[in-house]
Amino acid sequence: KHILVVPGDGIGAEVTTVGKQVLEVIAQKFGHEFTYDEALIGHVAIEATGSPLPDETLEKMRAADAVLFGAVGHPKYDNDPSAKVRPEQGLLKMRKELGLYANLRPIKLFDELLEASSIKPEILRGADILFFRELTGDVYFGKRERLDEGNTAYDTMIYSKYEVERIVRKAFEAARTRGKKLCSVDKANVLESSRLWREVVQTLSPEYPDVTVEHQFIDAAAMLLIKDPKRFDVVVTGNLFGDILTDEASQIAGSMGMLASASVGDNTGVYEPIHGSAHDITGKGVANPLASVLSAALLLDISFGLKDEAQAVIDAVDSVLKVGFRTRDIADQNTPAEKILGTEAMG
Amino acid sequence: KHILVVPGDGIGAEVTTVGKQVLEVIAQKFGHEFTYDEALIGHVAIEATGSPLPDETLEKMRAADAVLFGAVGHPKYDNDPSAKVRPEQGLLKMRKELGLYANLRPIKLFDELLEASSIKPEILRGADILFFRELTGDVYFGKRERLDEGNTAYDTMIYSKYEVERIVRKAFEAARTRGKKLCSVDKANVLESSRLWREVVQTLSPEYPDVTVEHQFIDAAAMLLIKDPKRFDVVVTGNLFGDILTDEASQIAGSMGMLASASVGDNTGVYEPIHGSAHDITGKGVANPLASVLSAALLLDISFGLKDEAQAVIDAVDSVLKVGFRTRDIADQNTPAEKILGTEAMG
Ligand SMILES: CC(C)[C@H](C(=O)O)[C@@H](O)C(=O)O
Ligand SMILES: CC(C)[C@H](C(=O)O)[C@@H](O)C(=O)O
Repeated sequence: KHILVVPGDGIGAEVTTVGKQVLEVIAQKFGHEFTYDEALIGHVAIEATGSPLPDETLEKMRAADAVLFGAVGHPKYDNDPSAKVRPEQGLLKMRKELGLYANLRPIKLFDELLEASSIKPEILRGADILFFRELTGDVYFGKRERLDEGNTAYDTMIYSKYEVERIVRKAFEAARTRGKKLCSVDKANVLESSRLWREVVQTLSPEYPDVTVEHQFIDAAAMLLIKDPKRFDVVVTGNLFGDILTDEASQIAGSMGMLASASVGDNTGVYEPIHGSAHDITGKGVANPLASVLSAALLLDISFGLKDEAQAVIDAVDSVLKVGFRTRDIADQNTPAEKILGTEAMG
Repeated sequence: KHILVVPGDGIGAEVTTVGKQVLEVIAQKFGHEFTYDEALIGHVAIEATGSPLPDETLEKMRAADAVLFGAVGHPKYDNDPSAKVRPEQGLLKMRKELGLYANLRPIKLFDELLEASSIKPEILRGADILFFRELTGDVYFGKRERLDEGNTAYDTMIYSKYEVERIVRKAFEAARTRGKKLCSVDKANVLESSRLWREVVQTLSPEYPDVTVEHQFIDAAAMLLIKDPKRFDVVVTGNLFGDILTDEASQIAGSMGMLASASVGDNTGVYEPIHGSAHDITGKGVANPLASVLSAALLLDISFGLKDEAQAVIDAVDSVLKVGFRTRDIADQNTPAEKILGTEAMG
């Protein structure tokens, strides 16, 4: 199996280094042979080649069996709304070109981290949510433009039925293997694209009679996720709403630094932390690498079908937490200083 | 002063009845004379007249000094994506026709409710956020349409600079009178309308040198709001992002049932709870009327400039909570059964 490592920007390099080490240990322990290559994306790719997603990177991605991805982004562009070339374009183009229409984000709290969250332990205990975020449509890919000499700007929130259908089917199928509950999130009381989304969910629902479906508006969902996370099992939603809800849901897992995601579609899968490039802590060696480690577990599970190997990684994370080790972001007032580790030591 | 009461749908009628009673008590106590009228909106207006915002209602709104508003919505339409006439159209048309471009949503926890939230008390204590949600633009009012024989649907997320400027100025001015911090929320790493939004904030910022500005992406903001609500003072954002963030922020105030909002613009102001029509509890007499009561306080303060009267209402809410009375939504496991009140008793 051939794995492409794409560190990207900021802490991406630090955390994927650890993710890759874990894959190496797994290969040795379980007698697999993984080969690796590296490629550029985002700000580092712009600096080196002028493009946020060089052709060479895209070709290497297509040729790989799976991609271990870091993060993209750089504050320089955030403060310059007029920049024409931006790191995020590389990420979005990758998603589109590789047909990565389904972004899976499992949200599950490790027992040891019950106290690391801002939410009360009794609200969190037992929460276990699997998000399906649509990843190649919506306002991320619709037409956008300036009008009226730059004084007006628009973006287009757009969905076609086949795009909704393929992600909703994946979500229904996953719900079958879990708690048999599917929550679809939209804003159908206002948006036409949401009404189309809801129609598709309603049309498919009879094919999955064993799965109970509910619809929530995005505003209510953002509230309920915090108020009562246990009510959710599988959640399916569009690209923008999924972006917002899954970041918010990171508080259920104690920290953004714990959350992995899998982006899958018709071909190569891409595995990445849901956190960003975090330039404020880049190079300090304090980033939590566990989201990248858990992304490696998803890679083993989903792209390679290696369930035992994936479980071994999750168990390793669990046991390191049980022994009391923490990175700064998941430490609480009871963590003794000597148990607070940097990125490398945690790896 | 002439006040129009527009109960709308579901629990709207129950809670505005209490809001109006409170206005009456204030009038008596402070020697004012308020006159009242009523009008229809939403589902009840559709049933009675065929239109979700009858012309008569709009005329009465224009003629009033302020509007005390309930809620709109009905499950019937939510499950029928193809309905052409919908209660929410009445709400959106009202906002547009009355030029209510600024929706103020103060989020402040009454000390007594520290335990009612799913968030830890130590995270909440001292949180005090004032949201400015833009209310007459964005994807709520852009062109929307079905294409391709109904198989594709789009909505248009659109902003012009003058629309952003007028709400951002209001937010800057409010920040001046408070903690002097303004957080602008957008998705400028992807959306052109967000880049325009950010440009306007950056352009205006030098005019308010005493206010510190930060920009957050909506996904990060949704996370930070839960992780560390105290970091926020004034938040300004677009219509859609504001809808999501303020519902989420209701958890900071313990319950949706506590949150009031003011929608203001060039003329008549509209005051309403941020909660919806809640048909699941309609007619049971259990709805929390305090959001409507606090909306009445905002009405007195903002539309009539009656600060002492507004404070008297807030103090009354505070003291009723101090005595231990709760509606069901803000009760916790320590609330004795005899202290749990219905809508009327709480009023
Ligand atoms: C960096 C940004 C464009 C991206 C997104 O919004 O999709 C990120 O927030 C994510 O969730 O992967
Ligand atoms: C009912 C709905 C259209 C409305 C909105 O999205 O604006 C509501 O959620 C609100 O926040 O007032």
